[in-house]
Amino acid sequence: MILGAIEAGGTKFVCGIGNEDGEVLERISIPTTTPEETMRLVVDYFKEKKVDALGVGSFGPVDLDVSSPTYGYITSTPKKHWNQYDLVGELKNHFHVPIGFDTDVNAAALGESLWGAAKSLDSCLYMTVGTGIGVGAVSEGKLVHGMLHPEMGHILVRRHGDDHFAGSCPFHGDCLEGMASGSAIEARWGKKGIELASDSSVWELEAYYLAQALVNYILVLSPKRIVIGGGVMKQEHVYPLVRKWVIQLLNGYIQHKNVEGHIDTYIVPPALGDNAGLCGALALARQAYAIKKTS
Amino acid sequence: MILGAIEAGGTKFVCGIGNEDGEVLERISIPTTTPEETMRLVVDYFKEKKVDALGVGSFGPVDLDVSSPTYGYITSTPKKHWNQYDLVGELKNHFHVPIGFDTDVNAAALGESLWGAAKSLDSCLYMTVGTGIGVGAVSEGKLVHGMLHPEMGHILVRRHGDDHFAGSCPFHGDCLEGMASGSAIEARWGKKGIELASDSSVWELEAYYLAQALVNYILVLSPKRIVIGGGVMKQEHVYPLVRKWVIQLLNGYIQHKNVEGHIDTYIVPPALGDNAGLCGALALARQAYAIKKTS
Repeated sequence: MILGAIEAGGTKFVCGIGNEDGEVLERISIPTTTPEETMRLVVDYFKEKKVDALGVGSFGPVDLDVSSPTYGYITSTPKKHWNQYDLVGELKNHFHVPIGFDTDVNAAALGESLWGAAKSLDSCLYMTVGTGIGVGAVSEGKLVHGMLHPEMGHILVRRHGDDHFAGSCPFHGDCLEGMASGSAIEARWGKKGIELASDSSVWELEAYYLAQALVNYILVLSPKRIVIGGGVMKQEHVYPLVRKWVIQLLNGYIQHKNVEGHIDTYIVPPALGDNAGLCGALALARQAYAIKKTS
Repeated sequence: MILGAIEAGGTKFVCGIGNEDGEVLERISIPTTTPEETMRLVVDYFKEKKVDALGVGSFGPVDLDVSSPTYGYITSTPKKHWNQYDLVGELKNHFHVPIGFDTDVNAAALGESLWGAAKSLDSCLYMTVGTGIGVGAVSEGKLVHGMLHPEMGHILVRRHGDDHFAGSCPFHGDCLEGMASGSAIEARWGKKGIELASDSSVWELEAYYLAQALVNYILVLSPKRIVIGGGVMKQEHVYPLVRKWVIQLLNGYIQHKNVEGHIDTYIVPPALGDNAGLCGALALARQAYAIKKTS
């Protein structure tokens, strides 16, 4: 089976070809400029590939409600030119194959659950901590959606007593993303995270906020594994701090080996590395193909 | 089809007979004393009923992992005599029919999604605010479980600046349940909620905490409807306050008609009234019967 994958990001579209085992056979990167320009290059790339299905993991917000007239659109993004853009519609104009479409983080969650750090589990959470914070989840074997897709990066956290940073989220100020994203770190400390690597107070605070979010995700979704990636998590010393705070904040309430004794294998880095996004899109393509076959 | 339903609570077991349309045909109430005494009366009640399936919505925590040796147990409850009690096992000793088993709140969520306030939706959240706070959820048409069942009543909330109450949760102090349950209200104000009905500051604070939790549930699960019941919510004037705070805290981030303009039909009371628990157990029985048939 030949599957096409598109990791549609705000700065670049990574396109690739892979198979149903999550193997990426080739990939290219296309800058995100205008939809016309970017999508022309995307279409050109896939034109001769004879894919059996396409998968798109996209920056958002996106409309995932198949009964909606704007299904497949990137909706109210502040990203210039892409507001209300019919991404799936444009692909359908050129490719008459099943097209899977979801958020980039839901795609990555599915990819990690099929081939990565949460392999063979029917439940996991994938969080990326970069410029922003995005989270996707698989629950009971399915990607979580409802009224809309999750927007877990914006959950409310408790301010640390010593932290007087106002928060960088334009909507909520001091929500999780406003306090703990890469942008928030830079705005609070006046330097990028990578330049602050040796400052333990930076990462203790970072872990405190991330752990609060994880505690709430654990209490709401009870994921069987939590995968955290993204640029900020390249600081690998943050993982043990996050785990420590999760245990402390749960305070013995969740009686499960994942939390009691095995948290090192419960809260983990992604296993798909730099291919996480593209593998996620492959996973969406595989899912779309399977659904089409049974329908 | 004759379905048996058990609403297993900490003070009473309500047992009943109903059908696959959620109609409760008869019911009895049995005090929760020791497992031996209570379960003998439960078994006696169902003995002559010739049920096709049984459903149990139970107080918790419970073990819902079918691959676990303690599946069907009430696990680490502080409730005397019931710690590590094999509830489903005891029923299996007497009834050779499919048995559905879940938390009381997951049962109620399923019941409301089949026959109640979230009818015909494949996604909803059910919250009960009583002595404690319990929450169940249906997502993508299925009850949410993972590592364990959700424990959303304990998510972390932000303390209101004017509130100096330490919180009543033995695990977390000022988590949601510690700040907003019926017990918390009584501990903070020195009176039961019902005696404080006319004190608007009590309910403004209550709504502030409940709304924070709902905002986080919305961001994580994106439920298509939110049903809130329980003793505390008999104060019907709390609903509009909760809705107001949800809109305020989301601050325009979730662009959906449910939040923008239609919140009165998004955050609602249960439709099954006093039968919510029993209907939930009926729903579990119906589900167990259907699964058995197709397996």
